Amino acid sequence: MSDANWGTPIEVALPSWAVALANTASPCRTDEARVALAIALARGNVEHGTGGPFGAAVFEEATGRLVSVGVNLVETRDNAVLHAEVVALMFAQRALGSYTLASPPAPVAHVLATSCAPCAMCLGAVHWSGVSRVLIGATRDDAMAIGFDEGPVFPESVRYLEARGITFVEGIERASARAVLQRYRELGGPLYNG
Amino acid sequence: MSDANWGTPIEVALPSWAVALANTASPCRTDEARVALAIALARGNVEHGTGGPFGAAVFEEATGRLVSVGVNLVETRDNAVLHAEVVALMFAQRALGSYTLASPPAPVAHVLATSCAPCAMCLGAVHWSGVSRVLIGATRDDAMAIGFDEGPVFPESVRYLEARGITFVEGIERASARAVLQRYRELGGPLYNG
Repeated sequence: MSDANWGTPIEVALPSWAVALANTASPCRTDEARVALAIALARGNVEHGTGGPFGAAVFEEATGRLVSVGVNLVETRDNAVLHAEVVALMFAQRALGSYTLASPPAPVAHVLATSCAPCAMCLGAVHWSGVSRVLIGATRDDAMAIGFDEGPVFPESVRYLEARGITFVEGIERASARAVLQRYRELGGPLYNG
Repeated sequence: MSDANWGTPIEVALPSWAVALANTASPCRTDEARVALAIALARGNVEHGTGGPFGAAVFEEATGRLVSVGVNLVETRDNAVLHAEVVALMFAQRALGSYTLASPPAPVAHVLATSCAPCAMCLGAVHWSGVSRVLIGATRDDAMAIGFDEGPVFPESVRYLEARGITFVEGIERASARAVLQRYRELGGPLYNG
């Protein structure tokens, strides 16, 4: 705390099990398969004890090719920004070498799949990301029910992004997504909030 | 784009001029001095061509000791998440070795100063960050006026955070903050949006 260490970069690293999962993933052509992978990442994060019960992934819309994965790294990296969606978007943008995943300038459109409805920060990250669709498993209420305060997200927040061309689909594989949240609670995983 | 490179961490690094500025900063005991440092970071980012016209810093509330700085790194790092506030919060959390800057568990309260009103993502990051106050230079309208779409932030978004104990003070050193935005526009700096 006394040594600020401003000159040393912060590293955002995926857990090795998540890298292995990503390396063996097949293209996911359906919305259900895409959210299922995000949920598998959330489940893996809980079972491996590498973070909160949330996972996300970015795919090429047309082909289903996996572009990136993300898991919640808040506790393990001492970094409140590293939600699953933020991590997945960061890795996708690095993979493309661009701060936007929109097509154009990217050659194809991209979609974000997430195990749980984006919190206020992640919804804002979606706004800047250039993805054209967001596929969601569990709902905001499901996350709030186990104790996470998802921040200021209102119906008009989603409408604001929809008006700018981003489509949202919620409740895909919801029971499976909710089961991961329940499992996290059963294991006594920490709930952090502002 | 074909090589996903998931096993290699993403690095978030401050520009060297910003590290030098942080290393020579005196404690900032007034709100004006805190926002002035954030504006100096924004101005430096424009003049050095290292990113968008935004700067931020985290201070200990009681002493004014500088805990971290941040500048917009979206274009230079190909990363839409790296707004000034996000970068400053990430470095502050690393400095404390905790995902929250709240006291407790941190020994003292922390305040975020920013050259411009937080966008939707950054407001969400503030929600999770543990800061107790946010000091703001230019307004949302000032940023929108030069072409940045700040995302879904509504009066009730701020009220949501205020209800959880976070105080917002806007318009500090606004003319100086706005001048940096104007300078960026005069120089033809790129405007990126979702």
